[in-house]
Amino acid sequence: MSLLPRWANRSTLRRHGMADGIAGVVVGFLVIPQSLGYALLAGLPPVYGLYAAILPTILYAWVGASNTQAVGPVAVTSVMTAQALYLVLPAHSSLATYAASAAALAGLVGLMLCAASVMRLGWLTQWLSRGVMAGFMTGAAGLIILNQAHHVLGAPLQHDQLLHLLTHLWQHPPQVHLATLMLGLLSIAVLWAVRRYATRGLIHLGVPTAVAGLVSKLTPLLWVVAMTVLSASVQFHALGVHVVGALPAGLPPLQWPSGLSVDQLLQLLPSAGLIALIAFISSASVAQTVARQRQEPFDANQELAGLGLANLGSALSQGFPVTGGFSRTAVNLEAGAQTPLAGVVCAAVMLIVLWQGTGWFYHLPLAVLAAGIVVAVFGLIDLQTFVLAWRVDRADAWAYLGTLTGVVLLGLQQGLIFGLLVCFAMLLRRSRRPHVAVLGQVGQTAHFRSVTRHNVHTWPSLLIVRIDDSLYFANIDSVTQYINHALQQQPHTQHVILVFSAVNYIDLAAQGMLESLNQQLLARHVRLHWTDIKGPVMDHLQQTACFTQLSGAVYLSTFAAVEALKPPAPLPEYHL
Amino acid sequence: MSLLPRWANRSTLRRHGMADGIAGVVVGFLVIPQSLGYALLAGLPPVYGLYAAILPTILYAWVGASNTQAVGPVAVTSVMTAQALYLVLPAHSSLATYAASAAALAGLVGLMLCAASVMRLGWLTQWLSRGVMAGFMTGAAGLIILNQAHHVLGAPLQHDQLLHLLTHLWQHPPQVHLATLMLGLLSIAVLWAVRRYATRGLIHLGVPTAVAGLVSKLTPLLWVVAMTVLSASVQFHALGVHVVGALPAGLPPLQWPSGLSVDQLLQLLPSAGLIALIAFISSASVAQTVARQRQEPFDANQELAGLGLANLGSALSQGFPVTGGFSRTAVNLEAGAQTPLAGVVCAAVMLIVLWQGTGWFYHLPLAVLAAGIVVAVFGLIDLQTFVLAWRVDRADAWAYLGTLTGVVLLGLQQGLIFGLLVCFAMLLRRSRRPHVAVLGQVGQTAHFRSVTRHNVHTWPSLLIVRIDDSLYFANIDSVTQYINHALQQQPHTQHVILVFSAVNYIDLAAQGMLESLNQQLLARHVRLHWTDIKGPVMDHLQQTACFTQLSGAVYLSTFAAVEALKPPAPLPEYHL
Repeated sequence: MSLLPRWANRSTLRRHGMADGIAGVVVGFLVIPQSLGYALLAGLPPVYGLYAAILPTILYAWVGASNTQAVGPVAVTSVMTAQALYLVLPAHSSLATYAASAAALAGLVGLMLCAASVMRLGWLTQWLSRGVMAGFMTGAAGLIILNQAHHVLGAPLQHDQLLHLLTHLWQHPPQVHLATLMLGLLSIAVLWAVRRYATRGLIHLGVPTAVAGLVSKLTPLLWVVAMTVLSASVQFHALGVHVVGALPAGLPPLQWPSGLSVDQLLQLLPSAGLIALIAFISSASVAQTVARQRQEPFDANQELAGLGLANLGSALSQGFPVTGGFSRTAVNLEAGAQTPLAGVVCAAVMLIVLWQGTGWFYHLPLAVLAAGIVVAVFGLIDLQTFVLAWRVDRADAWAYLGTLTGVVLLGLQQGLIFGLLVCFAMLLRRSRRPHVAVLGQVGQTAHFRSVTRHNVHTWPSLLIVRIDDSLYFANIDSVTQYINHALQQQPHTQHVILVFSAVNYIDLAAQGMLESLNQQLLARHVRLHWTDIKGPVMDHLQQTACFTQLSGAVYLSTFAAVEALKPPAPLPEYHL
Repeated sequence: MSLLPRWANRSTLRRHGMADGIAGVVVGFLVIPQSLGYALLAGLPPVYGLYAAILPTILYAWVGASNTQAVGPVAVTSVMTAQALYLVLPAHSSLATYAASAAALAGLVGLMLCAASVMRLGWLTQWLSRGVMAGFMTGAAGLIILNQAHHVLGAPLQHDQLLHLLTHLWQHPPQVHLATLMLGLLSIAVLWAVRRYATRGLIHLGVPTAVAGLVSKLTPLLWVVAMTVLSASVQFHALGVHVVGALPAGLPPLQWPSGLSVDQLLQLLPSAGLIALIAFISSASVAQTVARQRQEPFDANQELAGLGLANLGSALSQGFPVTGGFSRTAVNLEAGAQTPLAGVVCAAVMLIVLWQGTGWFYHLPLAVLAAGIVVAVFGLIDLQTFVLAWRVDRADAWAYLGTLTGVVLLGLQQGLIFGLLVCFAMLLRRSRRPHVAVLGQVGQTAHFRSVTRHNVHTWPSLLIVRIDDSLYFANIDSVTQYINHALQQQPHTQHVILVFSAVNYIDLAAQGMLESLNQQLLARHVRLHWTDIKGPVMDHLQQTACFTQLSGAVYLSTFAAVEALKPPAPLPEYHL
């Protein structure tokens, strides 16, 4: 494998170089204010957003799975970062400690994603049901909006739960700074209206769809520029409006975060795991959708590696956790990006700005940045999924409610875990009653069918039970109950034949169940037999007590078992 | 329903009263030292162990599901209580705050268990796979043993993670008090030897099995008495050996814990949920096993109600979370208990001791109590399950390892959650590839079977796909891939027929999948049809977009679908 990425060859560059260059420049300028805002959301000074955007973008372009995915800080992982550090660090930690912890968190996220890639855990994209994801995102959006309120209102809010934030706001009503408030609300109104109506309006005016989309995506940038220019000329900061202020110029030193004890790293581990999960799932879902539209292949394990490296890069350049962003990827696409070269160009633009242009942002009001974030996360609020789920998939509706309630009451991390556990419980609940059927023989054939649905032949001494699901801890209780019930119905049973034709695995608990069923039957002088076991299942069972102590035999087919075990036919009368 | 429990009638009392009385007295004296020890494990003064044992025992006897279950503080829930409070309370909280928090925790656990009973969540007994449970118990045992070390060694250890404890012990080697250490080690050796060999030895000497079992269970009590007498006569405490000291006499005031803010209660919620889960699962597994042996019915929802009330009782009497204990239930059985009356007698014994006999425990050395706990939790260490699982059920082995590693690195609660998530992931991984088959018609019958296994008739324009599992978020990806692959193999397909005969539910994500499959096929001018949908599934689907926008039709059977959709047969030649 060449160390050069697959798109770094002359023909690709000649074909797409121009388009990618333009897209890269557009995205570069667009994500700069976003990145500054997300750094604030993560509890860091604005410039750290740029640190977290440059190296990760380059590294993702090198190995990531998607051609057009744009990687950097996004709203959800930023607020998760703030919460993780809020839980672990003592109050009033120094900026150096806080920044080092954020970078260490990114490093842990990166290591976990790389490890998951090596372990080929790409299938984890399917881990969150729609209800859990929608509930989590809705709760996160609420938290982010309340969190951003302080840039509009003035009072700093550092809490990990919606409820905390609300109580705090209630008990300590913030000092409102009128100019800031008006600027913030105006920005929200303008940005929201643009987001909502600009594309449609432009298309209505005859602008081509792609151009309309791009222009409406770029309008926030224009607003940022306009407000910055206005702020500089009117001297907003003299009026008491908080502005970004002086950003340190130049790249941060490339070095791994240091100064954290093993203990602190351990405490960050669970948060890192959850951030890695959310980062991967949200990035993969965007990348997968885009790949399908463009009919490109998508490899989830490669995506894991790409995101892992990006986060390690973020850690190395003093950043914080990053992932693929929906809005920046959309802009990238609409600006015409074809290959990851666009990402490299975008990183180059940010690098130049960091070198030479940090002064441009001095007068940018924080309220404008906050308004951008608030409007961006409006899109994360997803109540329709709940309404839909309540009508058609109640279990997913409960998972949604569980996650959202958890996020509101306990915070993002605990809420997500709670939602996952609710989802797990619902799944077990659904699968705890597998289909089990008592069988009989169809005529004189080798076919056996359910006694309740077909006209079949049965024997009082034989109980043939087919289990239509794999046996595992969640369903063994109801299988045991079913067999005991069937035995009561058929008191002269001498042989129980379990048909395993639909059983794909038998877990440890189910093996124990088979073992105790065998002993329990033996005590009643009933023998237990197995038939139709699949090869891989048999391989596992051969070493276990439930197999070696089996009172009966193992048959290749139900027919063979019945032929061996059915009572001999009575002699026909004319023989007498 | 009468407010009197089912065993409180004259005939039952006359039949079993004597046996239950004896068993109650035996268990009462036996669990007193245990309870004192578990209070220390929970971070409370010893007397709180009695507070937590009396009222809960009475309440459980009133509504609990088991006739012979003995309820009170047990090792695992006690150490979980200590960890929960360690996480929530500031260091050096006053005893009043700590005790109120412990009681509040019991109250929350009780409320949750009662709510679970009302919601009929008894099936949650099946929630923990064997691997998760064994890994959790092993980790908890390690933690408890290290935690008890300080009663032998002298230095107080208050940490929530094995790793923390070990690091702490390493960095601050405790001041060893020689007499205490020798007493502790001697007690461990004696109690361990008795536990291990006494029953077998007595049976070997001709003592009946039941008596031998009871005597060896009572030996720890004899040791406690002997050491207390020795301690009193030699004045151990003058030698610097820590003793239980003066216990306040009399019952605590019956009142709900107070002084906690809503915020603190919220912070206790996740811990309470996990303690409730562990309390319920361990109690139910003991009670269920006993019920099976005694051929009595067992109702998991009633068990939830009994445990819930017991914990509310514990909260009311200043206790801490309680559950059914394995060892005390075993003693109860071996002492001949037949009905919950034994529990009431046991509570009465403790009540009398609390009233009149608190002085008896003054000289009991803490090292002896600690030794009793250490030996008791030896039995929780379960490495065999891991070895067995590694051989026959690798997924459960990973769940074990995940839980144990989680407990060691992150603490009991986070470890348990991590184990549950690993178990969930393994389950999804196993079920992510459901069996899917392309079907053809068997001869001229209405039967359809897999094309790979049977000699069946197919049509190039029809693709009949049977999905042998419910459709949900974890498996929709591989179903989509399978269908796309089958379409590539059969490029002239005009109709895709999905056979839902084995589908028990279709979750929200799967409905989305069906919707997009429909659109994707429509774009290729292929129509999608459904057959053999079960009634309840159809009820749900009728309101959804995937049904209303279906490009094809819904048929009652595959045969009906094929008859309607197959190309007309060419006219036979002799007609020409």
